[in-house]
Amino acid sequence: MSRVYVHEVAARDGFQAEPDFIPTVEKIAFVNALSRTGVSKIEVTSFVSPKAVPNLRDAEEVMRGIERRPGVLYTALIPNVRGAERALSVGVDELNLVMSASESHNQANLNRTKAHSLQGFQEIMKVVRGRASINGSISTAFGCPFEGNVPEERVVDLAGRYLELGFRGITLADTTGMAHPKQVAGLTEAMKKRFPSAELTLHFHNTRGMGLANAFAALHAGADRFDASLGGLGGCPFAPGATGNICTEDLVHMLAAMGYDTNIDLDALLAVARKLPEIVGHDVPGQVSKAGKITDLHSLWEVER
Amino acid sequence: MSRVYVHEVAARDGFQAEPDFIPTVEKIAFVNALSRTGVSKIEVTSFVSPKAVPNLRDAEEVMRGIERRPGVLYTALIPNVRGAERALSVGVDELNLVMSASESHNQANLNRTKAHSLQGFQEIMKVVRGRASINGSISTAFGCPFEGNVPEERVVDLAGRYLELGFRGITLADTTGMAHPKQVAGLTEAMKKRFPSAELTLHFHNTRGMGLANAFAALHAGADRFDASLGGLGGCPFAPGATGNICTEDLVHMLAAMGYDTNIDLDALLAVARKLPEIVGHDVPGQVSKAGKITDLHSLWEVER
Repeated sequence: MSRVYVHEVAARDGFQAEPDFIPTVEKIAFVNALSRTGVSKIEVTSFVSPKAVPNLRDAEEVMRGIERRPGVLYTALIPNVRGAERALSVGVDELNLVMSASESHNQANLNRTKAHSLQGFQEIMKVVRGRASINGSISTAFGCPFEGNVPEERVVDLAGRYLELGFRGITLADTTGMAHPKQVAGLTEAMKKRFPSAELTLHFHNTRGMGLANAFAALHAGADRFDASLGGLGGCPFAPGATGNICTEDLVHMLAAMGYDTNIDLDALLAVARKLPEIVGHDVPGQVSKAGKITDLHSLWEVER
Repeated sequence: MSRVYVHEVAARDGFQAEPDFIPTVEKIAFVNALSRTGVSKIEVTSFVSPKAVPNLRDAEEVMRGIERRPGVLYTALIPNVRGAERALSVGVDELNLVMSASESHNQANLNRTKAHSLQGFQEIMKVVRGRASINGSISTAFGCPFEGNVPEERVVDLAGRYLELGFRGITLADTTGMAHPKQVAGLTEAMKKRFPSAELTLHFHNTRGMGLANAFAALHAGADRFDASLGGLGGCPFAPGATGNICTEDLVHMLAAMGYDTNIDLDALLAVARKLPEIVGHDVPGQVSKAGKITDLHSLWEVER
């Protein structure tokens, strides 16, 4: 069985986009529950300005409050040196640095030029000095909601800059759900060919229904790491029309059906997913939590006549 | 550009599962609007007993009322000789005959044994005598909600029986959304190898989020015909937990993004899809109608600051 690594991002990418603040104690309980399911990595929070993302203003409290389970990497989104310092002070395992492949989305999302973002990364690296590993995310890697098509070379070149800066991993993010399976196969193959030893993660959204199709295409092209969000929570507040990330339990269910080893207890994951509507106060897009697993058989007596 | 044929099933598979009867005049207007989008085939209705499926009790009126557009094949679901006679009397182009690959689902859905279903098909063929083409659907081709796994050979063997009976096309239906992409690739390849000249259609449901992933896997394995339902309407009333078919506009959008030629005007299709919630009185699962197409770009001024 091939191993596939699933990274859970709902606590950051999901909770930041919720209309209401999720109480700190609930965030901690949620991350702890996820830790026990066997996911490889959990993006716990974001060390951004509390003014910019009020929903994650309790980043330090959450990081200090959670149980750190061996085998799980605890990561956080870091926008700048101040964020890196805050994250290091509470022992985050991995800092996730983000910029966009497209200039206009970088400006809209981060309020700075791409050159400015790269300069900021260098400053962060000086502060970190090996005290945490670094993952670099490339937003709008499969298309920009303002510019449209993003050339493959631009993404590959930016990934090369990330590796030169000393980043361990690279995440290609389909920030506003513009990727399609053929494109995903092509870019995944190009990345694997150019950077065979880099840790490559794919981050898909299901905005136009293609989320799991893109994950399958990426798998087929040699990818083995995926971001996903429990219940399909999330989206980008700066991306008009965007709905959620691909759903963790639906992804893990598909991988299990196809015989991949994710090390995740799907029933435990589904139990956490089924509590999510109560935590966020609304229904979530995930489907396996409603329909049940492929392997959940029914009795003929259940059939209405 | 490769040609892919998309068959629209909402008027039958969708409307039959709605809680309320859709007025005949609205059904006719809906089918006429679909005819103008460029879809290859429309499953208009079902000639079942009005007692069994009261929502489609107006089958003759709908068939007589619609405009028959050249290039569009008008098909209907036929359960028995009586249904075939009714369909022939109103000039249905193609009769779609259905049975399940699994004995228990055939019993639950059609209230007869598989042997009895095959015998019924022979009787129907005697009545039709070339006055319409015949498509045979195999329900639970990718798994049965009662029995679980359905062996590939059982599906291929049943398809062989269909062809011996003189059916032109074969549809493999994932009736309750149990298919996964690897299985789809395997069964599609097996069918293409065994019956290279048969017209093969894949009918997927998105019950567990894998609908478009399965369509992509099938395409990759050589399939070029898909059933889909506008808005993702539908499901099987006898399949516990099942939600809708794959969504036509989301499928066509994915195919267009990947460069396939479907002959469908996606904007016209989206215009019809956006009227669907009004017709059925509730929200529908389709996503492109809400998020817009990949190619619908946004202005930076739309971004909230």
